[in-house]
Amino acid sequence: MAENPGTTPVKSQIQRALRTSAGDGDLQTVARLIQGLADVDGVDDHGWTALMLAARNGHDKVVKLLLDKGCDHTLMNKAGQSALAIAEFWHHPAVSHLITQHIQGSNSSSSSNNNVVNFFGLSSLDRFSHKRTDVQWLKEKLHHPSTTFVLFSQSSPYITWSDEGKCQVCRFHYEQIKFLFEKPEKEEPVTIFLGIGDVVASKTKKTSTHNPTSRSFDSSLDQPAWFAVDAGDVPLEHLQEAQPNAELLSPRNYLALMSVADEEAGVIGQARALLSWHDRYKFCPTCGSQMHIQEAGYKHTCQNKECRSLKGIHNTSYPRVDPVAIMAVIHPDGNQLLLGRKKQFPRGMYSCLAGFMEPGESIEDACRREVYEESAIKVGHVTYHSSQPWPMPSQLMIGCFGYAVSTAITVDTEELEDVRWFERRDVAAALQGGGPGTGEVGSQSSALFLPPRQAIAHQLIKAWVGMTANL
Amino acid sequence: MAENPGTTPVKSQIQRALRTSAGDGDLQTVARLIQGLADVDGVDDHGWTALMLAARNGHDKVVKLLLDKGCDHTLMNKAGQSALAIAEFWHHPAVSHLITQHIQGSNSSSSSNNNVVNFFGLSSLDRFSHKRTDVQWLKEKLHHPSTTFVLFSQSSPYITWSDEGKCQVCRFHYEQIKFLFEKPEKEEPVTIFLGIGDVVASKTKKTSTHNPTSRSFDSSLDQPAWFAVDAGDVPLEHLQEAQPNAELLSPRNYLALMSVADEEAGVIGQARALLSWHDRYKFCPTCGSQMHIQEAGYKHTCQNKECRSLKGIHNTSYPRVDPVAIMAVIHPDGNQLLLGRKKQFPRGMYSCLAGFMEPGESIEDACRREVYEESAIKVGHVTYHSSQPWPMPSQLMIGCFGYAVSTAITVDTEELEDVRWFERRDVAAALQGGGPGTGEVGSQSSALFLPPRQAIAHQLIKAWVGMTANL
Repeated sequence: MAENPGTTPVKSQIQRALRTSAGDGDLQTVARLIQGLADVDGVDDHGWTALMLAARNGHDKVVKLLLDKGCDHTLMNKAGQSALAIAEFWHHPAVSHLITQHIQGSNSSSSSNNNVVNFFGLSSLDRFSHKRTDVQWLKEKLHHPSTTFVLFSQSSPYITWSDEGKCQVCRFHYEQIKFLFEKPEKEEPVTIFLGIGDVVASKTKKTSTHNPTSRSFDSSLDQPAWFAVDAGDVPLEHLQEAQPNAELLSPRNYLALMSVADEEAGVIGQARALLSWHDRYKFCPTCGSQMHIQEAGYKHTCQNKECRSLKGIHNTSYPRVDPVAIMAVIHPDGNQLLLGRKKQFPRGMYSCLAGFMEPGESIEDACRREVYEESAIKVGHVTYHSSQPWPMPSQLMIGCFGYAVSTAITVDTEELEDVRWFERRDVAAALQGGGPGTGEVGSQSSALFLPPRQAIAHQLIKAWVGMTANL
Repeated sequence: MAENPGTTPVKSQIQRALRTSAGDGDLQTVARLIQGLADVDGVDDHGWTALMLAARNGHDKVVKLLLDKGCDHTLMNKAGQSALAIAEFWHHPAVSHLITQHIQGSNSSSSSNNNVVNFFGLSSLDRFSHKRTDVQWLKEKLHHPSTTFVLFSQSSPYITWSDEGKCQVCRFHYEQIKFLFEKPEKEEPVTIFLGIGDVVASKTKKTSTHNPTSRSFDSSLDQPAWFAVDAGDVPLEHLQEAQPNAELLSPRNYLALMSVADEEAGVIGQARALLSWHDRYKFCPTCGSQMHIQEAGYKHTCQNKECRSLKGIHNTSYPRVDPVAIMAVIHPDGNQLLLGRKKQFPRGMYSCLAGFMEPGESIEDACRREVYEESAIKVGHVTYHSSQPWPMPSQLMIGCFGYAVSTAITVDTEELEDVRWFERRDVAAALQGGGPGTGEVGSQSSALFLPPRQAIAHQLIKAWVGMTANL
């Protein structure tokens, strides 16, 4: 990897100077250079950041300053070492302590003070669910000029591409799409109230840690409302009158859905999961009658007045969310990870094992069962890492680490083409790589590559690589 | 609380001697007394165990021996103090360290090496899911004399009561209930293959930590198969011919379902969740046609050959599991817990806030949303504790701790009658109490009581009380 692409020569020189002074322990120069520098995590040809260089030489004051200024301690050099790993290897305990404290955050009662927010998990909207039954309020919001509409067909959003090649969701206003609503009531499109708030689509950021104070906890009625509308088979030209560059993101292509900006992914995921529910659940599962949509898209009611689903509370009336256990399984030696591949994966790609949870299971047992079924590996202790809504159509991915208590693999060839233990260094190298065909790994004949950062599997694998500092 | 009820005078004397020698630091006597003593956790009038007394006086060798012999470090005396809290209060760091290490287990990469197994979460059966499509094997197992059947009507199991007042599920064999299957194919009862293995119903134990090596990972085809059968409206007399004391556990009474033995609860929960699914999901939600049961009860297929649910994979075909976020919310001062009560709760009962997850949410955001909706309390960091399958009809309870970042409560009176902060000492006292009407708490006019131990809310609350040693 060369100098960061797209960096101007001047910025590149400042980054190089930052790394040099960090490695030298020159606190004053580091402090001066870091002012206003957009990318504090610039790397040299070997993937070393300023933080790593300061950690290498035990400059704890510089390390503290760099961490305070937001340097990313999870980055790894091309040898797969994090700043913490480097500090521990060269035995700089003060630096190790600083980085460990930074990782753990200030809350001593939990292992980390920051919850991981995965792709599709970041939404700035307050769902404002108490307003879902307020028909008058909803009607006013529907017609309000500040209200934003996102439109879907075949469960896929209408988007535009920016000049920089970024995928952004088209935002419509009522006046632009009111023709959709000017139909007899029965033909009106499925419309979901998503919530209120501002969704700022900035440049795509990395999956980030969550700062709860930034959420719209204090959102008020003054904030704009958001709705998702299933536009059905409306001709594209009608929408392009309002948004000339509007196009439909490839339907049925899950990878396409991952190209929306991180800031918009949560809203799109919420909308897609609910629209998919309406698409698949049009009839009462208990009696077969037609269902009536209520509560701004969050409830179904059977039209048959005799149906017993109308007595008491039944889950037939509410959106479906399917929990899936997904787990990075760690070898008893701590330095190998169990990954598997499906036939339909691109060549060389392996990922975490995963499976739908069954009724009557705990998360931990679902992890053990799935891993045993697919690989014959026995898992003992299980720890939770993070979760991710996955709108295809409406999964809840529950990401865990599983600690293997056996090592001999038997692949369930009905489910998977291959399951293997991978060495930490090979996994770390694959994390650096971009996709299929990049970089041969270790002694294996084919290159390993991993799911993209938008998938929780990627985040679990990354967390594991950073988990044991002692490489 | 007096000496443990049901203890014979001799055992009671040995327990008293154990406590005395533990408090004196007499390692030899403790080692001798503990041999063969069934209850190493006997308490004195103030709720003190031998472990607490050894911790009080800093006898680390005795503490180590007691922990090794299985003494329960989570117990609290009547002042709500655990052994760790006592050691910290009296500043015996060696003892604190021993207990902390014991709690953390040997695996340094996770906070605890033991996963909590909640009620309905312990099942000794291997689900053997690869056999669900093996029609011939299933048929053989159905008729095999070693096979166990558990019978349900109205989603409730047939049970018997032992002489000691324990509720046990009736286990039938094929010959005893074959009349249920001697009908035209269309009228055959809904039958679910639960798995293979031995379910030993012993005396009811406390919710326990999980030892993965005790699971039937190595289960083979020789182990007995288990099936659940919906017996519908079969006359009770027909079943009593085989099991004279059989009776139907009160249907629709959720508390009744919690009276089954811990060892059987997992099997009953699995069966009930699946039977409830078949009961509620008889018609295809996509086209309204009738569904056909397949794969030993784990799949539905639409009978309409034109239905698009037959193209590709649709969640309409698989059992539903509804994830619920349930959270113990901790006050910023660390010493108060947020609990709420529904109108229909028994008098004085409060529990953790909880709510169904929505599409497009992470677990952490669902916790924050629910707490904010119901109490206006803002939650920052969220940590996962444990999960619990809850077969009413098929929830997955995801138990978390939420760290509040605000304190002023506004109750959502649509959902809850009251929400309050409770002091740690009052919660600890309520954990000691058994149920409504037991023990006045602090200065409040009405006694607080908590959900029973079978509920994950109880386990979350208990874990919180033991979380901060410094009372």
